[in-house]
Amino acid sequence: MGPWKRVEPTEVKKIGWRTVVTKNFLLPDNKIHEFHTINREETHSVGVIALTKDNQVITAYQYRPGPEKLMYEVPGGGVEQHDVDYQAAALRELREETGYVSDVVVHLGDIHKDAYNNGTWHYYFVADCELHEDGQDLDPHEYVDVRLITIDQLFENARSCLMTDTEAVFLAYDKLMDIRHGK
Amino acid sequence: MGPWKRVEPTEVKKIGWRTVVTKNFLLPDNKIHEFHTINREETHSVGVIALTKDNQVITAYQYRPGPEKLMYEVPGGGVEQHDVDYQAAALRELREETGYVSDVVVHLGDIHKDAYNNGTWHYYFVADCELHEDGQDLDPHEYVDVRLITIDQLFENARSCLMTDTEAVFLAYDKLMDIRHGK
Repeated sequence: MGPWKRVEPTEVKKIGWRTVVTKNFLLPDNKIHEFHTINREETHSVGVIALTKDNQVITAYQYRPGPEKLMYEVPGGGVEQHDVDYQAAALRELREETGYVSDVVVHLGDIHKDAYNNGTWHYYFVADCELHEDGQDLDPHEYVDVRLITIDQLFENARSCLMTDTEAVFLAYDKLMDIRHGK
Repeated sequence: MGPWKRVEPTEVKKIGWRTVVTKNFLLPDNKIHEFHTINREETHSVGVIALTKDNQVITAYQYRPGPEKLMYEVPGGGVEQHDVDYQAAALRELREETGYVSDVVVHLGDIHKDAYNNGTWHYYFVADCELHEDGQDLDPHEYVDVRLITIDQLFENARSCLMTDTEAVFLAYDKLMDIRHGK
């Protein structure tokens, strides 16, 4: 069992702002097969598990067009192509989406969400957040209701299909449990 | 903050076996905006955290075309449209992909992986698995090396960007920790 060999051609198609990249690979059967993957190659996104000074979790409550429901999301979003400092991008997304700022931040880990998605998600843990006087700075068509919830409620939401970045809760699990138990 | 109102039209386009559904919503600004979502509506997938009788985790080590690397995946896959018994589908995927069978199974939870993906992932915990004499029954273009790993290694893989269904590890976290500590 070794890696497959990527071969040309690669075909990139866009439907609106959605990119589908058709990649070709030489498989162990010695034939070339094509796979239709989502997002342009080198797509990066960031997300934060962010806590206030009194350890409430800062969530971005918003409607999601895929699941078609309101969800308690971790703040975050897509990163611009020129933007290589993911930690800075994560803190900026936190500030823009929720109005909260902090410089107490650690990297939690990176995730590939799906076998056919080219994106990488970079997650951070941010503590001691305080509301910045400027408040939110939302993009057009972005409607975010900032909701502070308990760590228990975050776990409950993650178990109840009420957030899309559940893997961020996995990466922060031990840290959150320590805080939850006052360690 | 309420739900958005879905309005017509809906446009479905396919690129190879990839479906992009363009949905329209009436937003709080009272204008209609379109969102390009992935997967046909009513897409369902299943995945299993599966343990052998001696509590080794059964992983499907395989190359992934999005991330372009070999990953220690949880057994699972897409569910046929007529297939409404997700638990049965999960056990079938486990058998086909790895050759392991068991009837000790509990539902862990459901996940929406992404704000712009219409799919739902249904995860199950399967204990006491045994190798069936028939072995694997793989689809064409599916190359799966079954690897048994420790629970610690599963956690380590999930933290190290070596699996795509990390949220399944979150859903099984307490259960796995109890087994890990012999409870």
